[in-house]
Amino acid sequence: MKLRLATPGPTEVPQRLLLAGAREIIHHRSAEMENLIHEINEGLPPLFGTTHPVYTIATSGTGAMEAAVANCFSEEDEVLVVSNGYFGERFQAICRNYGLTVHVVESDWGTSADPRQVAEAYTQHPDIRGVFVVYSETSTGALNDVQAIAQIFKDTDVLVVVDAISGLLVHPLPMDAWGLDVVLAASHKGFMLPPGLAFIAVSDKAWRAVDSSSGPTYYWSFERLRHFYPMSSSSPAVSLLLGLHESLKMLNEEGLPAFRQRHAALGRASGRALNELGFTTFIKEPHRRSHVITSALAPDGVDTSQLLKTLSTRHGLTMTGGQAHLKGKLIRVGHVGVSDALDLCAVFGALEMSLLSLGHRFTPGAGVGEIVRVFHEEEK
Amino acid sequence: MKLRLATPGPTEVPQRLLLAGAREIIHHRSAEMENLIHEINEGLPPLFGTTHPVYTIATSGTGAMEAAVANCFSEEDEVLVVSNGYFGERFQAICRNYGLTVHVVESDWGTSADPRQVAEAYTQHPDIRGVFVVYSETSTGALNDVQAIAQIFKDTDVLVVVDAISGLLVHPLPMDAWGLDVVLAASHKGFMLPPGLAFIAVSDKAWRAVDSSSGPTYYWSFERLRHFYPMSSSSPAVSLLLGLHESLKMLNEEGLPAFRQRHAALGRASGRALNELGFTTFIKEPHRRSHVITSALAPDGVDTSQLLKTLSTRHGLTMTGGQAHLKGKLIRVGHVGVSDALDLCAVFGALEMSLLSLGHRFTPGAGVGEIVRVFHEEEK
Repeated sequence: MKLRLATPGPTEVPQRLLLAGAREIIHHRSAEMENLIHEINEGLPPLFGTTHPVYTIATSGTGAMEAAVANCFSEEDEVLVVSNGYFGERFQAICRNYGLTVHVVESDWGTSADPRQVAEAYTQHPDIRGVFVVYSETSTGALNDVQAIAQIFKDTDVLVVVDAISGLLVHPLPMDAWGLDVVLAASHKGFMLPPGLAFIAVSDKAWRAVDSSSGPTYYWSFERLRHFYPMSSSSPAVSLLLGLHESLKMLNEEGLPAFRQRHAALGRASGRALNELGFTTFIKEPHRRSHVITSALAPDGVDTSQLLKTLSTRHGLTMTGGQAHLKGKLIRVGHVGVSDALDLCAVFGALEMSLLSLGHRFTPGAGVGEIVRVFHEEEK
Repeated sequence: MKLRLATPGPTEVPQRLLLAGAREIIHHRSAEMENLIHEINEGLPPLFGTTHPVYTIATSGTGAMEAAVANCFSEEDEVLVVSNGYFGERFQAICRNYGLTVHVVESDWGTSADPRQVAEAYTQHPDIRGVFVVYSETSTGALNDVQAIAQIFKDTDVLVVVDAISGLLVHPLPMDAWGLDVVLAASHKGFMLPPGLAFIAVSDKAWRAVDSSSGPTYYWSFERLRHFYPMSSSSPAVSLLLGLHESLKMLNEEGLPAFRQRHAALGRASGRALNELGFTTFIKEPHRRSHVITSALAPDGVDTSQLLKTLSTRHGLTMTGGQAHLKGKLIRVGHVGVSDALDLCAVFGALEMSLLSLGHRFTPGAGVGEIVRVFHEEEK
């Protein structure tokens, strides 16, 4: 059975990137690798909208989140975590783990954070040293208004730390223009690579905080990353770097505007198709929907656990459902990276067949038809 | 030009493992991945000589070294670092970074630590909570007597933390039998994989220390690793896990005894061949030589920097030299993983050609002849 992924990461890895990573391993201190790392280092900052270096580390996204906390803050520092999903909660957990005093601006899962509430929390806690926000909250599909949140802290010493693990590339995130201080990303979302690499960019303001931070850190110490830059501070994940080099080429060939337009269309088409099949789009405001995934609540009588199981066992398609309290209620159609209109036709074909076999009734083709319609409009 | 590696890691990755990692990515929560991780989890502990789980993390070896420090100790704890090379110094740096009080048993680079000195240091510093030792010190090729060192701390509360990053598999390291408490390894040595995965095994005694450690840690928190076990606590490096699964099969097919005998022969042959070419074996005592690399000082008049450059540019062969104060004086012939007798013939062929072109005189074939001789004896 052919295997397919409609998950928010890991995403499908294009054969071209898989093969780039499968060539014979080259030594990380060889001239060829130096050239390759040089090109990677040149290629990454524009994608982050920054003139600062972007550091590449062998770790998962969670490691990058921890690195931000460990490097920029000290025990008992007050921080604000903007939290409206699973990854906002992870930021809270890491900060607490490091002994920070954590204030939380909480919004319901499925909504985006309200920047006014963030401003209000800042008035109440004027001594905070940093604010943590997840750009694209993959657990719900909500896109947070990072630009407006960062604006609040523009002329302050408060660091704006952004988890852009799934949001980067798919949505604009001009780090320097928006005044972001630490931006985190990872290999297995828009970069279309297997998991295993994380990326970190650090503003001048954040570097000043690093200097005064007392927390212990070594492997992902920003100081060490800077010291060894452009090379890696530890053995780099060579096969993933070979893939990354090729990924940057692919991104460059398509161009970010086209990449983003494609993802916007994938999101729009998925939302409309899900509605046609009786699902309720989970994120109400269309402009607050992440284009990484489209999440929707199942119609009455459809058990999403059964649905996801059918997709997987009968059609070889992996899709994820709700996390935490949304388990069994939500499905999340992932369409990040190399996904295109035809992939989405296949995904909705499988969804329709699975729904029919579970006894849910609708006109076959109703969902896929919306995909066709949206992309037909796109072609014009 | 065909590229070859004679480095102590990354090692050459067999095509079979490269291709295993290049298949389509499967989701880390899929049934197939669960089976695969289950088999990995079954396969790793015997290689560590332990009945405890072995945790797999997406990081480099340095990350695993830091994880041991971060999880098992607290600020101001006294520890002893056995240091006779670059990686012993790294343990010191990480421990200091975490605010531990570090005592050092230092031996010259190129020698192995003397267990009696370790015992003596313990008498002087009876309050130490842990002792750190590198099994195979890749910077020099020295093998430390971990068994004798661990014996000193057998009936104490002192944790024995072993960096077995290059030593595991190549040399016996029965964790439980020797009373080791934290054993660290990585993917890009004996496992023959690209860098990017680290492995950690934790004894009961170490778990008690984890409970009382106050250091902050999240991504590689032992508690989290245990909580999510058998699955991964964060997005795992899927392509590397696919490779690891295949690597365990390969190791199993060859069997550890044969794997070790091959490495011992590679080391013996390399040492004899280097001597024939006028090099001086760096580690004097043969039984203290790591079978991961063979290191040797160049004969007078041979600049190893030029030699390594010639190997690389003319023959596509990457070999490494001395680190720190040994730069320009030492060469380190790596032969770990999938290296065999014929690879070594090629390596020494390139060494001979390069030495001749640099004006060094000897009978062509003198080095390669020793390789042939040793492996001919092995065949009997």
